[in-house]
Amino acid sequence: MGIIRISDIENYESKEIEIRGWLYNRRSSGSIKFLIIRDGTGFIQATLIKNEIEKEMFEKIDNIEYESSIKVIGLVRKENRAPLGFEILVKDFEVVHKAEENYPITLKEHGVGFLMNYRHLWLRSPRQNAILRIRAEIIKSIRDFLDQNGFILIDAPILTPAACEGTTTLFETDYFGDKAYLTQSGQLYNEAAAMAFGKVYCFGPTFRAEKSKTRRHLMEFWMVEPEAAYVELEESNEIQERLITYIVGQVLKNRKRELNMLEKDISKLKLIKPPFPRLSYDEAIEILKHNGSKIEWGDDFGGEDETILSNKFDNPVFIHRYPINCKAFYMKPDPQRPEVALCADLLAPEGYGEIIGGGQRIDDYNLLAEKIKEHKLPRENYEWYLDLRKYGSVPHSGFGLGIERTVAWICGLNHVRETIPFPRMLNKIYP
Amino acid sequence: MGIIRISDIENYESKEIEIRGWLYNRRSSGSIKFLIIRDGTGFIQATLIKNEIEKEMFEKIDNIEYESSIKVIGLVRKENRAPLGFEILVKDFEVVHKAEENYPITLKEHGVGFLMNYRHLWLRSPRQNAILRIRAEIIKSIRDFLDQNGFILIDAPILTPAACEGTTTLFETDYFGDKAYLTQSGQLYNEAAAMAFGKVYCFGPTFRAEKSKTRRHLMEFWMVEPEAAYVELEESNEIQERLITYIVGQVLKNRKRELNMLEKDISKLKLIKPPFPRLSYDEAIEILKHNGSKIEWGDDFGGEDETILSNKFDNPVFIHRYPINCKAFYMKPDPQRPEVALCADLLAPEGYGEIIGGGQRIDDYNLLAEKIKEHKLPRENYEWYLDLRKYGSVPHSGFGLGIERTVAWICGLNHVRETIPFPRMLNKIYP
Repeated sequence: MGIIRISDIENYESKEIEIRGWLYNRRSSGSIKFLIIRDGTGFIQATLIKNEIEKEMFEKIDNIEYESSIKVIGLVRKENRAPLGFEILVKDFEVVHKAEENYPITLKEHGVGFLMNYRHLWLRSPRQNAILRIRAEIIKSIRDFLDQNGFILIDAPILTPAACEGTTTLFETDYFGDKAYLTQSGQLYNEAAAMAFGKVYCFGPTFRAEKSKTRRHLMEFWMVEPEAAYVELEESNEIQERLITYIVGQVLKNRKRELNMLEKDISKLKLIKPPFPRLSYDEAIEILKHNGSKIEWGDDFGGEDETILSNKFDNPVFIHRYPINCKAFYMKPDPQRPEVALCADLLAPEGYGEIIGGGQRIDDYNLLAEKIKEHKLPRENYEWYLDLRKYGSVPHSGFGLGIERTVAWICGLNHVRETIPFPRMLNKIYP
Repeated sequence: MGIIRISDIENYESKEIEIRGWLYNRRSSGSIKFLIIRDGTGFIQATLIKNEIEKEMFEKIDNIEYESSIKVIGLVRKENRAPLGFEILVKDFEVVHKAEENYPITLKEHGVGFLMNYRHLWLRSPRQNAILRIRAEIIKSIRDFLDQNGFILIDAPILTPAACEGTTTLFETDYFGDKAYLTQSGQLYNEAAAMAFGKVYCFGPTFRAEKSKTRRHLMEFWMVEPEAAYVELEESNEIQERLITYIVGQVLKNRKRELNMLEKDISKLKLIKPPFPRLSYDEAIEILKHNGSKIEWGDDFGGEDETILSNKFDNPVFIHRYPINCKAFYMKPDPQRPEVALCADLLAPEGYGEIIGGGQRIDDYNLLAEKIKEHKLPRENYEWYLDLRKYGSVPHSGFGLGIERTVAWICGLNHVRETIPFPRMLNKIYP
């Protein structure tokens, strides 16, 4: 008899097995008692029948609080009414630890603020379990896609001496007498790595000390940032299309149970396939004006603008060629029309808005030096970055995909706070 | 005719192809010129023969500095003397960008201090390329192993309100008026996640603000930390053995060319297989004393002690059951002998020393509360951690594997600074 995990139960029909987990729920119906046991991989019904188990055990089970840890031994049998299609007919059990009576999270509704204070326990709920399993699947699919497509993981540093775009939204720390900042993006380092390895990506936590409370922002979030030498804007967009399609495909294939648990409309995800529509910024502005937005050419999109645009399409949509002033100093101006940048953001459908920001980088030394000056950045911090345009500069592009926003879209959540195990929000750093 | 990457060249024998890369080196022999082109995936010889290419082009190539970016079109042919077994017979080329003359890294020897100032360019050298490709392979193999063995990735937070072991070696930052610290370990959060998911791992950057300069320490380093519910010390050690063996196997299989480039003695890596030897701390102390160390029972091992011990075995070696006072507050005392902890460190062979620290955690509420008091930790920061022992506590274990030390061992480097793209060392945060 083996110790198995609930997610594997279908392979053990009619076999005697042991499950090690926790008591999630129970109900009783006279001579039958039903336990719901969770082990982290799933939830299974374990049935105790009065005349088929020792009397003492049949009674003892009533004295155990929810979330007690328990080992259950029994026979796996088909049960079409059970969520996994199987149940365990209990022959024996052992209580490893009797939980205290006052488990704070009950099966009734709680407010999110309350639940966030108990995030360490809230993770045990079926919904949070499903979301974070999908998150893990998304991350794995991104890494697999990039590894299979010749991108090499080159971790960018977290502690950096300089900011991409000013220091007002940076977390600062003392670095042995110098100032250092928590990274907002690994991109500049990625560019150095792309000139050394051709195609690279970094994948790590990034930080933004913005005093904003929106459903799309966290102070600490994860981002994957691919960067490729000899790749121009359109090829970069094509890589993104393929990546997003791959992610969605893998989640549909491997995490269908979790999507169902979240009551996600899977039919929407099944529509995702290349090519994704491409709208110029100019076209997007026209659409927004027709829809009553007060946006003017030159403005960046607000959250509501993104929602309007992304609701127009089944697929994610690229918005390309933003005004150069909306974008970071390193964005390459379109040679045909220097007031716009060779850039594209990707908006997720169903109103989710931006999940990717990307573009082609300035490859000319003089132009880049000028832009650094124009943006009043401390040139001495960027000498190494300028070196990349002195020695073998090439056209190159890259993008950053926000993990939490991608998870929110794929899971159908209206706030990013549940998409990461321990969210860091304004005034919220416990647990 | 396709654009191909150098690492794929063996599939294109007798075909005309295009390579996009940089000029790494060249030599001339009268009517033949040999270029070495790198594209990030490898280095290839591209040969120009005087009478088989336009005269103007044959001469033009002499005016191009090293590290200029270049597209080369030509015929792939077998050449047994070339490192990859192939070369390109050049038919045409295009210089994308002529590098400036003063490329700081020449083919002669430079000091590491100098090279670290040019880390953004140094990454282009064959040796650094090989090391970081092996690093990427190691990271991929770890993730694959854990994913395949039922561990779920649950990212731990980087910004934390409390320290595992005092605040003296922590980087501090202001978090909207509160103090926050950069994480030293995701372990405490992992324990919460293990109670929710059964088997989990986190994998991210960790930080230690230690004013030390040793060949085994960085201020910012990456660590993978698996944690599993219902797993006791010996089972945790077995997971580690299998993981390490898998990592070494994948590197031998997929990165042999890079290991050869580094002149690593592969025969040593081929010896790695379970079971790894297990020494108790007591036995280790005896061995060290026999070898002239002045260590006494109760002391932690120094770097040299680790070197002595790890040189004794072909395999990595577990040292288990350290005195409880050498270890963190959450380590479970051995019930047979409470003055030692149910813990084990894994020392890599060839003198490399500790690459893993791990152990079984205290699962008893009262004992843990006592330890928090004994270590003078602020209890209010650990209430959530104590909750894990109130509600369904189970025996559980985990470990942390340091990526940079593992890369140093597998690559055969005597310092961790080359094992990470942009190392953060004492007084060293540029570029």
